[in-house]
Amino acid sequence: MKKLINDPDDVVVEALHGIEAAQPDLRVDHQHKIIYRGDTPKQGKVGIISGGGSGHEPLHGGFVGLGMLDAACAGEMFTSPVPEQMQAATKLVDGGAGVLHVVKNYTGDVMNFEMAAELAAAETGARVVSVVTDDDVAVQDSTWTAGRRGVGVTVLLEKIAGAAAEQGRDLDQVAEVAGKVNANGRSMGVALTSCTVPAAGKPTFELGEGEMEVGVGIHGEPGRERLPLAPASDIAAMLVEPILADLPFTKGDPVIAFVNGLGGTPLIELYVMFNEVNKILGGHGVPIARSLVGSYITSLDMAGASITLLKVDDELLSLWDAPVNTSALRWGI
Amino acid sequence: MKKLINDPDDVVVEALHGIEAAQPDLRVDHQHKIIYRGDTPKQGKVGIISGGGSGHEPLHGGFVGLGMLDAACAGEMFTSPVPEQMQAATKLVDGGAGVLHVVKNYTGDVMNFEMAAELAAAETGARVVSVVTDDDVAVQDSTWTAGRRGVGVTVLLEKIAGAAAEQGRDLDQVAEVAGKVNANGRSMGVALTSCTVPAAGKPTFELGEGEMEVGVGIHGEPGRERLPLAPASDIAAMLVEPILADLPFTKGDPVIAFVNGLGGTPLIELYVMFNEVNKILGGHGVPIARSLVGSYITSLDMAGASITLLKVDDELLSLWDAPVNTSALRWGI
Repeated sequence: MKKLINDPDDVVVEALHGIEAAQPDLRVDHQHKIIYRGDTPKQGKVGIISGGGSGHEPLHGGFVGLGMLDAACAGEMFTSPVPEQMQAATKLVDGGAGVLHVVKNYTGDVMNFEMAAELAAAETGARVVSVVTDDDVAVQDSTWTAGRRGVGVTVLLEKIAGAAAEQGRDLDQVAEVAGKVNANGRSMGVALTSCTVPAAGKPTFELGEGEMEVGVGIHGEPGRERLPLAPASDIAAMLVEPILADLPFTKGDPVIAFVNGLGGTPLIELYVMFNEVNKILGGHGVPIARSLVGSYITSLDMAGASITLLKVDDELLSLWDAPVNTSALRWGI
Repeated sequence: MKKLINDPDDVVVEALHGIEAAQPDLRVDHQHKIIYRGDTPKQGKVGIISGGGSGHEPLHGGFVGLGMLDAACAGEMFTSPVPEQMQAATKLVDGGAGVLHVVKNYTGDVMNFEMAAELAAAETGARVVSVVTDDDVAVQDSTWTAGRRGVGVTVLLEKIAGAAAEQGRDLDQVAEVAGKVNANGRSMGVALTSCTVPAAGKPTFELGEGEMEVGVGIHGEPGRERLPLAPASDIAAMLVEPILADLPFTKGDPVIAFVNGLGGTPLIELYVMFNEVNKILGGHGVPIARSLVGSYITSLDMAGASITLLKVDDELLSLWDAPVNTSALRWGI
């Protein structure tokens, strides 16, 4: 295992200290492992929190800031945060207009966020609504999931729901737009290598020199099939076609096209992939209204990529374009 | 070799098509492999171009946009662009106020940019001034370098000089501020793994499972010494102390602290490193005025990081804070 770390058990704690030192607009509650906006709570604004296992950075802490999340809870590596963390975060961001929980569909996360919502309601009377993302078309159920896994759509949802909250929409309206994003987005990923969890010290799974895992999950969960390594054009088709078939994306419907790196893949390869995605979508008559290319929801040091397509209308596009000021996504500010 | 590519010889060309499709504010001259601003040239504004071998993305194409570069020339992988490319880019961005060439100190780059400046002057009478970055304290001369290598300071210089040009400063003034950045910035890097150039198909150098290369160059050039893999705290000290000793950074002088990933290292490790850098600088009484954490000057899929410290005064800080709107750095817009 070759990593820039100290004790494998201290990676999350130390990274939180690093974030606190590097990002002056953010605060960190080290007891509860919560990254939050320095100006939260905002009276009358719906608060939005998310969280999940660490190892997917910049998700979620890199998306805390104006126009996106109010707070993010960091779990241990690839492990859901505990309910007390989300409970504390809910209290922290509640400005009287209620709190949206953004939850990726993994069994532990769903259960813990549910319990946190109940605890928060009992403690302070906070009104909480949850949205669960389940956009990964690769498999129906998975190692840690009943139903589809929540992956790349989570990034787009946090941006769009964050903009809706910033506009002053009420909790039901923010939850509605969040649900609309999840309903209209689909994703699929591919791994060229495994990742290595620091405390494990060895790769999560074995993958031969000439192999790739198509439909991989963000914790290295098995995908649809293990295939011989293929050119980027073939890989892009293996990911985009099932996405297009699933929703379906109809000719002329504009999309946000998101090509995401899994942590160990350099940017130049993501642009090669984007070029392929662009050609495939062009062939289907699906116009790209906006794009996002980079490593935003990762799996530690895994080499590979995922593709997310979100079908958008004028409402979603204008929320996407609204100002955002986080360490990982920033524009219009 | 496991990469998301098609033919290894087509990576640069296809990535340029991907950038063009993903970034609507940018234009690409495919004949000359130039990425440029859609609104260039701006009459009366000093034009700024840079360029170098591909494989270091987002450097330089990701830094084209308002407040930074006007154009970037993409060479073949780890190979300087040819003079005709910089000549064409110079012509493209010259709004009558002259053009600054930002050149990393590698023999081929320096020679080709010099020739391009002469060709441009002969062709259109363009006035060109060059600034050469040579901030890497690791080694005095290197595989492809007479003198020190140009590395992380290049990113900070392109941002700061870009802001100076945007303010309407003249060519000598923009060149002066660029020189000031190079004079006050120092860097050093470490590799945990080699990178693999696509056309070579195998790692550039061999590094044992328990080894790291301290002082590595961005093309995998040898550094100061090969050592057993160490904790992040030790690695940070091995990089920061020589930087501090070289300039020197005096107690109380504020710095921009830049922790950079080399392409295959995930963000969470960079924050662990930033935490160590913050502690070391605190111990020396060197305050961090601004920070940058991410993969901005990379070496394909190399795992590792580099650290850059730039001593700043009020002028450099205010130029750093000025609006920038590129695909890789964006704020204040």
